[in-house]
Amino acid sequence: MKHEDTLKRLKTIEGHLRGIIRMVEEDAYCIDIIRQIQAVEAALNKVSAQILEGHLNSCVITAVQGEDPAERQRVLKEVLEVFETSTKV
Amino acid sequence: MKHEDTLKRLKTIEGHLRGIIRMVEEDAYCIDIIRQIQAVEAALNKVSAQILEGHLNSCVITAVQGEDPAERQRVLKEVLEVFETSTKV
Amino acid sequence: MKHEDTLKRLKTIEGHLRGIIRMVEEDAYCIDIIRQIQAVEAALNKVSAQILEGHLNSCVITAVQGEDPAERQRVLKEVLEVFETSTKV
Amino acid sequence: MKHEDTLKRLKTIEGHLRGIIRMVEEDAYCIDIIRQIQAVEAALNKVSAQILEGHLNSCVITAVQGEDPAERQRVLKEVLEVFETSTKV
Repeated sequence: MKHEDTLKRLKTIEGHLRGIIRMVEEDAYCIDIIRQIQAVEAALNKVSAQILEGHLNSCVITAVQGEDPAERQRVLKEVLEVFETSTKV
Repeated sequence: MKHEDTLKRLKTIEGHLRGIIRMVEEDAYCIDIIRQIQAVEAALNKVSAQILEGHLNSCVITAVQGEDPAERQRVLKEVLEVFETSTKV
Repeated sequence: MKHEDTLKRLKTIEGHLRGIIRMVEEDAYCIDIIRQIQAVEAALNKVSAQILEGHLNSCVITAVQGEDPAERQRVLKEVLEVFETSTKV
Repeated sequence: MKHEDTLKRLKTIEGHLRGIIRMVEEDAYCIDIIRQIQAVEAALNKVSAQILEGHLNSCVITAVQGEDPAERQRVLKEVLEVFETSTKV
């Protein structure tokens, strides 16, 4: 199930982040720390994409096929906002 | 109309890009050139978001409300791919 | 001290990430989860920038002022690579 | 020479951008336009990286090895700012 896989990925990322904290505590080389942070960000991007995929295939379909135009607009606007933010982080 | 506004923005960006080419030809300061490139990228992100907004409110609604599940899947998958790429550029 | 501030930020991010895991476990709204992930990524970007700042003002200065051209090249190349990756995540 | 290669890349990107303008004028499929914009952004990222590489290996070395601490700070701060912006576009 998607849900389980998302959780597993997030817990792996949490472990990765704790490793980065340890690196800072042990005065690891700056560039190595930055690289690990970038790896965590790439992993978070994958989780976001996975969650968005589930969202498109459930809530978005329901809202777009639904009777309520305001709800449809709201749901599509959220997808747009998530895209806009993704081009800024 | 959205279409006109998108074209206008892209033509402004084209002018901006020509300005950057001139900066390189005239040996402008590297950092100033990079900043201008980053400004062009931010402007391109806005155009992408604008086009995606139009797409969500037309093709996506049509496909999701349509009879063809394969077409629906295709259209939602494209939105996801655009999001995935946006987290990488 | 910079080091302490970096650690504090990373620990805050760790707490934020645990909150996201809880949101997934409790079936929070997909878009809210994605927004929180994007907030974590923005916070991680700030940490990276802070670490890079310290690195530029210490290791990079030492290497560039040092006698070893290979070491100088290595250190500058790392800064470039970190920039290149940042445009991809 | 790096300079020539940068110019060549930028002119290719200009042609690419003109192609995108034509796509909008000819009402091409939204997603195809967004994909082309993302390709232009990826190409611009490569140009930025190339310019930064030249900058690190010239101006940055000169400033860091120079006598003026304020100039050194200024140049390193610019590199940091370019990195910070890159994580936002």
